[in-house]
Amino acid sequence: MRKIYWLLICLICVVHASAQQNDSLMIRKIYTEALSHGKCYSWLDYLSNKIGGRLSGSAKSYQAVNFVEMELKMLQVDSVYLQKVMVPHWIRGNKEQGWIIVNERKSQVKICALGGSIATPSEGLSAEVIEVYDWVEMEKLGKENIKGKIVFMNHPMKPEFINTFEAYGEASKYRYGTASKAAALGAVGLVVRSLTLALDDYPHTGVMGYVDSLPKIPACAISTIGAEQLSSALKKGLKSYFGFSMSPKILPDTLSYNVIGEIKGTEFPNEVVLVGGHLDAWELGDGAQDDGAGVVQAMEVLRIMKALNIQPKRTIRCVAFMNEENGGKGGAKYAEESKTDKRKTIAAIESDAGGYSPRGFTFKGNEEQIKRSIGWKDLFAPYLLHVWKAGYGGADINHLHDQGTLLIGLSPDSQRYFDVHHAATDTFDKVNKRELELGAASMAALAWLISEYGVAP
Amino acid sequence: MRKIYWLLICLICVVHASAQQNDSLMIRKIYTEALSHGKCYSWLDYLSNKIGGRLSGSAKSYQAVNFVEMELKMLQVDSVYLQKVMVPHWIRGNKEQGWIIVNERKSQVKICALGGSIATPSEGLSAEVIEVYDWVEMEKLGKENIKGKIVFMNHPMKPEFINTFEAYGEASKYRYGTASKAAALGAVGLVVRSLTLALDDYPHTGVMGYVDSLPKIPACAISTIGAEQLSSALKKGLKSYFGFSMSPKILPDTLSYNVIGEIKGTEFPNEVVLVGGHLDAWELGDGAQDDGAGVVQAMEVLRIMKALNIQPKRTIRCVAFMNEENGGKGGAKYAEESKTDKRKTIAAIESDAGGYSPRGFTFKGNEEQIKRSIGWKDLFAPYLLHVWKAGYGGADINHLHDQGTLLIGLSPDSQRYFDVHHAATDTFDKVNKRELELGAASMAALAWLISEYGVAP
Repeated sequence: MRKIYWLLICLICVVHASAQQNDSLMIRKIYTEALSHGKCYSWLDYLSNKIGGRLSGSAKSYQAVNFVEMELKMLQVDSVYLQKVMVPHWIRGNKEQGWIIVNERKSQVKICALGGSIATPSEGLSAEVIEVYDWVEMEKLGKENIKGKIVFMNHPMKPEFINTFEAYGEASKYRYGTASKAAALGAVGLVVRSLTLALDDYPHTGVMGYVDSLPKIPACAISTIGAEQLSSALKKGLKSYFGFSMSPKILPDTLSYNVIGEIKGTEFPNEVVLVGGHLDAWELGDGAQDDGAGVVQAMEVLRIMKALNIQPKRTIRCVAFMNEENGGKGGAKYAEESKTDKRKTIAAIESDAGGYSPRGFTFKGNEEQIKRSIGWKDLFAPYLLHVWKAGYGGADINHLHDQGTLLIGLSPDSQRYFDVHHAATDTFDKVNKRELELGAASMAALAWLISEYGVAP
Repeated sequence: MRKIYWLLICLICVVHASAQQNDSLMIRKIYTEALSHGKCYSWLDYLSNKIGGRLSGSAKSYQAVNFVEMELKMLQVDSVYLQKVMVPHWIRGNKEQGWIIVNERKSQVKICALGGSIATPSEGLSAEVIEVYDWVEMEKLGKENIKGKIVFMNHPMKPEFINTFEAYGEASKYRYGTASKAAALGAVGLVVRSLTLALDDYPHTGVMGYVDSLPKIPACAISTIGAEQLSSALKKGLKSYFGFSMSPKILPDTLSYNVIGEIKGTEFPNEVVLVGGHLDAWELGDGAQDDGAGVVQAMEVLRIMKALNIQPKRTIRCVAFMNEENGGKGGAKYAEESKTDKRKTIAAIESDAGGYSPRGFTFKGNEEQIKRSIGWKDLFAPYLLHVWKAGYGGADINHLHDQGTLLIGLSPDSQRYFDVHHAATDTFDKVNKRELELGAASMAALAWLISEYGVAP
């Protein structure tokens, strides 16, 4: 009896080791395919250089939808379709102008409208400017100091964070939420220091919101060099005026699409492993890193499966979400339709942190799911993926959280992301081919593992 | 008695934990200092944009020596001095020309002389060209096929390696060692595919060597696009000629310098922890990543120590080595003089893999040294340094190996390095400020730990 017991133990060990070895081999194949014949880089070239910035509702956003749909069809995956979604339609209008007047000397500064802002009067808006570091300071200054002025929120991202997303998280609420708070204190306009760790002359846009019950004031971002210039004048105690002119418009919501392509699972077709990124992008740049990279990486996952003739046990679905930047309607729509679909999205991997060298994944789910996922870490050590922990999934897939989906965020190296994020500098030349391909391979390998083994319940 | 025993154990644990905590705090300070007030980026700006490519013996190499010496002196470290070293002096001459003639149609291709190559005749050298993948194939073709021709060594770096240095290691012997082997078979010239994973139109230079007993033939590198063009013509069976014209010269060896600055240890001044990079650089580009980055990072280590008022127990010494690229004389000289110096270099950290996001360190030393070093790994986890293993130190410090020095290589992300390596594209704009600073901080933190604890015997 004891002998049989030991034999069984040995057999289990052998089977387990051999499964692990097979997994290793398959993952090696996936990376080699991505690095040797990857197509994501040339797709991104097209998306960035032939289409460019593609905010929801814009002509370019529809060109991007067509492009992704067509390319997915050319992969001859099992199905490709569009999911309708109504999206906000904000347009920037004419190129913005910004200026500073210090001691009656006027100089131009680089600004851009924040996404969702109203326009200034057509002749522009100019007023005395008052600098604040945060909301506490602004409240302390109060109505008596702020009424009639333009608030200058000069809250730099903190360089000491190693992961720049933490620095962004700390600072971005001031971009999103200051306008109405300032308006409540009587401010007539808002200028926000651009959210970047670089000192340069490019303004970085991004979404802001208004509180409906309060007056709406126009809000713009100023380049970090402009912010330093303005702050320096104010710190010298010089009476300073800030002026800006911009003409954005909020048009009626409009119909757009998530683009979806999938390879049907052979054993559990109704269990879906999603890979995705968002197709919309701010229009100052070309949306190469944010988030053209994520979209082409998700597309590449399907290409790799086809190229290697992998027939996944569970369905692998690529989703190019619309409208992450200024509304999140695409992600919300996907989750809403998922609720009544017999096909359940058991796991979703989002790439929305740029196409840089992948460092690992972060997981949002129940304890058992996270534990099992972390168990795969060693398989990825040869590819230098070492971050493997509980954390954020992604803005688009986050809507699936209450459906029990395991949410997974690809975590690339974060150092360069905010240099170009939401700025004119987010262009194709900022993307390295191999880094992009390694990210795609990492997503493909993890998606394949989940398609083989499922997720813990 | 037992009580006392337990009390002692507890005390040891508390002391150990508190030491670890102090180390953590100091490392945090070092990183914050580098990221908040780092000077390495502006130093590199100067070294790249005001000086530029600085091959041993060139005017620029002396400007670079002066610059580093002056900047180190401005840090007010304990001593700054030059170490004399005789170096080879190779000059490129006029801009090289390369051309292909296929079916009597001539087209220009981008080439550059390999470092150390002799010139072509002044009117250029043109001959039928024969493509080989490696030395096995070349030997197999033999004299009967090669005599009188130009050998085209088309050995691409393999994309499937995750660490691109492994791909470089596999392919670079064909750049260094093919000329004489081809000459032995009667070849009249050599053109080598550039060592890069990128497909672009920049030739990448690098050192080559001749075997003294064999005829010397001129050797150049062709851009990867040019290589593909030539290979494609040859694969179609079209009779193809390659031609090139270049005028490099080998001048007599000349006097140059390693630049050294140090902060004297308070307890063990004769035990030296070296941080370094190499100051010379190929002159097609500005030597920003190779290895201006390493030099300014090593300088930054001293700046951080001074800024934080750290008085290291052991001496911390910054060395900007001369002549890594085409001779390695600076590293050899340093090691030679070390032998008779009462001050022993107990550990040496070299940065010569670009100023990209640091991923960890590799260690070359005895087992005990490596084990103790790896014991520090967890202290660096917050900074995302995860590669911490036995491996290569660096070309300049390698000469110290037989003196029992623990050799340490900073290991940054390798994906982008060979895009610019030894090419005109190795310019300042390829360097990210934060990535550079993180590398410097990593070196500073490790150098500080070694200065506190020494290395295992």
